Amino acid sequence: MSREFKTIAMIGRVSDSRVADPMKALAGHLSNAGIKVVADPSIAAEMPVQSLSQTEIAAVADLLIAVGGDGTMLHAAALAQQQGKPLLGINRGRLGFLADVSPNEMLPSLDRILAGDYTREPRLLLEATIVSPDQPRRTSVALNDVVLQRCESGRMVDFETRIAGRYVNTHAGDGLIVATPTGSTAYSLSCGGPIIEPMLDAIALVPICPHSLSDRPIVVPARHQIDVVLIQRSDARADVIIDGRSQGELLPSARLTIKAAADRITLIHPPGHDFYDILRSKLRWGHDGRHRKPGVAVDG
Amino acid sequence: MSREFKTIAMIGRVSDSRVADPMKALAGHLSNAGIKVVADPSIAAEMPVQSLSQTEIAAVADLLIAVGGDGTMLHAAALAQQQGKPLLGINRGRLGFLADVSPNEMLPSLDRILAGDYTREPRLLLEATIVSPDQPRRTSVALNDVVLQRCESGRMVDFETRIAGRYVNTHAGDGLIVATPTGSTAYSLSCGGPIIEPMLDAIALVPICPHSLSDRPIVVPARHQIDVVLIQRSDARADVIIDGRSQGELLPSARLTIKAAADRITLIHPPGHDFYDILRSKLRWGHDGRHRKPGVAVDG
Amino acid sequence: MSREFKTIAMIGRVSDSRVADPMKALAGHLSNAGIKVVADPSIAAEMPVQSLSQTEIAAVADLLIAVGGDGTMLHAAALAQQQGKPLLGINRGRLGFLADVSPNEMLPSLDRILAGDYTREPRLLLEATIVSPDQPRRTSVALNDVVLQRCESGRMVDFETRIAGRYVNTHAGDGLIVATPTGSTAYSLSCGGPIIEPMLDAIALVPICPHSLSDRPIVVPARHQIDVVLIQRSDARADVIIDGRSQGELLPSARLTIKAAADRITLIHPPGHDFYDILRSKLRWGHDGRHRKPGVAVDG
Amino acid sequence: MSREFKTIAMIGRVSDSRVADPMKALAGHLSNAGIKVVADPSIAAEMPVQSLSQTEIAAVADLLIAVGGDGTMLHAAALAQQQGKPLLGINRGRLGFLADVSPNEMLPSLDRILAGDYTREPRLLLEATIVSPDQPRRTSVALNDVVLQRCESGRMVDFETRIAGRYVNTHAGDGLIVATPTGSTAYSLSCGGPIIEPMLDAIALVPICPHSLSDRPIVVPARHQIDVVLIQRSDARADVIIDGRSQGELLPSARLTIKAAADRITLIHPPGHDFYDILRSKLRWGHDGRHRKPGVAVDG
Repeated sequence: MSREFKTIAMIGRVSDSRVADPMKALAGHLSNAGIKVVADPSIAAEMPVQSLSQTEIAAVADLLIAVGGDGTMLHAAALAQQQGKPLLGINRGRLGFLADVSPNEMLPSLDRILAGDYTREPRLLLEATIVSPDQPRRTSVALNDVVLQRCESGRMVDFETRIAGRYVNTHAGDGLIVATPTGSTAYSLSCGGPIIEPMLDAIALVPICPHSLSDRPIVVPARHQIDVVLIQRSDARADVIIDGRSQGELLPSARLTIKAAADRITLIHPPGHDFYDILRSKLRWGHDGRHRKPGVAVDG
Repeated sequence: MSREFKTIAMIGRVSDSRVADPMKALAGHLSNAGIKVVADPSIAAEMPVQSLSQTEIAAVADLLIAVGGDGTMLHAAALAQQQGKPLLGINRGRLGFLADVSPNEMLPSLDRILAGDYTREPRLLLEATIVSPDQPRRTSVALNDVVLQRCESGRMVDFETRIAGRYVNTHAGDGLIVATPTGSTAYSLSCGGPIIEPMLDAIALVPICPHSLSDRPIVVPARHQIDVVLIQRSDARADVIIDGRSQGELLPSARLTIKAAADRITLIHPPGHDFYDILRSKLRWGHDGRHRKPGVAVDG
Repeated sequence: MSREFKTIAMIGRVSDSRVADPMKALAGHLSNAGIKVVADPSIAAEMPVQSLSQTEIAAVADLLIAVGGDGTMLHAAALAQQQGKPLLGINRGRLGFLADVSPNEMLPSLDRILAGDYTREPRLLLEATIVSPDQPRRTSVALNDVVLQRCESGRMVDFETRIAGRYVNTHAGDGLIVATPTGSTAYSLSCGGPIIEPMLDAIALVPICPHSLSDRPIVVPARHQIDVVLIQRSDARADVIIDGRSQGELLPSARLTIKAAADRITLIHPPGHDFYDILRSKLRWGHDGRHRKPGVAVDG
Repeated sequence: MSREFKTIAMIGRVSDSRVADPMKALAGHLSNAGIKVVADPSIAAEMPVQSLSQTEIAAVADLLIAVGGDGTMLHAAALAQQQGKPLLGINRGRLGFLADVSPNEMLPSLDRILAGDYTREPRLLLEATIVSPDQPRRTSVALNDVVLQRCESGRMVDFETRIAGRYVNTHAGDGLIVATPTGSTAYSLSCGGPIIEPMLDAIALVPICPHSLSDRPIVVPARHQIDVVLIQRSDARADVIIDGRSQGELLPSARLTIKAAADRITLIHPPGHDFYDILRSKLRWGHDGRHRKPGVAVDG
């Protein structure tokens, strides 16, 4: 057995029994295999693993294993990226776009991974910075998306976009999603954005309920910086939300700058992982309930 | 037992065993109940029912029962409308928007219907006429939709629409769907049209892949006549398709006129029929495969 | 000259010179014609008209004239509906869906209207009530739309809809628009809703950025009551917004009930008014900037 | 003056006076500048340029100048790609996505280009091959798109897609567009596809009126090969259309294979060319006719 992953960190919300149960099985299995398992105090209180802070576990581990939903994965991804560590996701019994290993197959999958039989998949991350004359810069990292969203009911937000320094458009509507390929199957898809294959180095700009019917999603190279500013005269207000976590309001005097993070995150998958297989399952392709031939000539 | 339905006509493509098998069971059950069963020769060759032409069966029957898919239902609806007879739809094991009774529940459902325990649901039909200086008028009846569709590859069709005599728009694209509420869940839905509840007296005009991004579906009262003409200068050609059956080409010199048919068709449903129940099943509402909360804050 | 409109009320935001200037011209013109003109104190401070409170002006007037944008029109419509008075809209130089008379044509248009040469157009209004165990009922009237919208960043709102008492769907997303035909060309259109002709007695339910891709707009008869409740377990919060005015939060214990108001509002139009003419102008139909034939065979 | 472009070929449909007039001015201007001008016989009959066949003109020229619409550009692009020559587009007075130089600015623009002051923009081309057991392979090159489209009225076409050898989905609907970034603003945009910036090395797969509401556009790296086959049992027929030119039917026994062409085409632009500038103009961004704030709070 390869000894690439000598120390493994477990991440997850242990108060959920659908997380705690597979985590305990996992901790036992890994310990039996001679691997050191570390986790934060909330987990360590429940099972025999070494207790460290969340920052420390990512620093000492060779591999992070997140158990939970996409929220847990997004959180674990931020830790993994900071420390440059690979990440494996285990779901709670329901396939996730990110957590693609099911609890009932996790032990054999893990044995193969520990034996070196796995695939590494780099995923693009975005770095979003609010540049304001009055405040220190705040930079956050997104695996899914950076969203500008109006926060006052009943008013549109007006904003300008620039791509690689060039003026693009002045938008009016509910806001804008700037999504990675990973995020293209999340909120962006609900707003009319395209699915982007994870290995394409691209960023999607997807307007949210745009006032103009010709204000459509744009896909650009990931090397382009995106800048967004509110229109000064606008009295509407807008929040910045990164991977679902609110970062506070974007003031008209500030600028939201988004660019690809220098470092990718590495997802670890068991052999046989296939993006399109997951897509088919999540979007229920092939399970359409409408009649196959709604406008057909008489078939009877 | 009520004797409202003394003679029942069966319609369907008997070469399909998923049709023939329930039809035989049905024929036996109805005969045992003292009901006269009529069908066309292709069916009468397979089971002990009285053989009549398709036109005759609709004329003598008190109720039409169609067994099959929506194609069969669309065909049976045309017969039912011509003779002013009610129609009941039995599917081939998979729920249909129109054929909502499943084979495995058809016998008890039928007993209740024969006993007078059922609902009558009127459905709007469209009457489409091609008015041409050179040819006699051809009028056809649609339960789902009247479609103008370009028939030459690689060219858009340009056409003008009028509603109740008023000019609406000059469109360019792949064509136009004029749909009843019944048709709103068929081809129209794939082209961005809304779902229209069957009891709303309305017609939807849904452009197919329109060149202009602001060319959007319009819903109008069913009492309005719709007129469509090709733009003369256009060199593209377009077909007229009614409930999936091609009616031939619309020439630039002709006009396609669509209006609500004077008579509705009456669908018979077993008690408990619910449009939204069928809609949920067909569109798989509540069976979304994507994560419930794609953009959520950390949940783990 | 007919004396149908003996007293006319003017409504508008007089601090905007694009409103004040036509209003002064209007006041002079009407006074010269022997018509009594009333307005609220902010207007009466600027021009020689009788000063009354907003409630009083609608009560004493035979006709309300709103000068301004759609916001002004929505406000004036509420006053007009309360007192059962007809409403005429004058825009600020740019055609509005509701304010269809331009300042530069208003005087001759008005002369014709005063002479009895005009059309009356009834428009459906919605009545929205928040039914809560803890609070008195609050009912508001909408000319455009009743919107349920999540008010917390980064979380979807989950809610159930019922139409005429029947369960329809459990939705997840950014919210729901319940729109009149008048509102169908406003926010609803940006969210994928259809255009509904004003004379169709219908209501559109349009999900906002729905998580499920099969969660589509539904159009139902205006006689149906719509009920919306939040899913109890949901931790997301949602606001109710009526014609752009926030009505506060919808609590999980409350129910939002929407139905057609008993009384319509009556819009007054100069002769020749045409809904499709306005639609073409507002949606810039016929002004597409893309090449007419993007996928054509070689034309050169 | 740089002598990079010593021989220039002119391409266009000279029977159109909006093409012939600027072409004559162009020919004179270039000849005066000492540049050899070549064109096909139809053009050479109208103005003093050297007459050669279309294949020859592309072979001998250092630069191709196409005068006309996007159809002419698509045709010229095929010639340019075969011979590895750069292409400049002049429109007929209306800005084109590809022909971005207007007749009234073409002479000074050309002087700057001849002086070496210009930008080169590579554009991705697709190579589509129909692989059939019965027929020789036919390969064509697309600058915009390769389209699979049903050619029989009233029937959906069922087909399978593979990306880089991996099975993606089984689709039912009107067909599929496989578009380059250049083609993303053409037919693809009418079918719900995203805008793709020309410098992104990507291909979009956009289903046309798909039966399944979750069958959405996918953007993939340009290095991936796309394979499309019809479902054998399907009785519907489908055509293959490349840049608007029909290539005949795709039989169920054949396979449509699409991949990036080895060589890009090079577009020549005058200084200051900006993709987003053209996009704003073509999509009329900033010219929305709807009220700016449809759902606003009272503004009057």
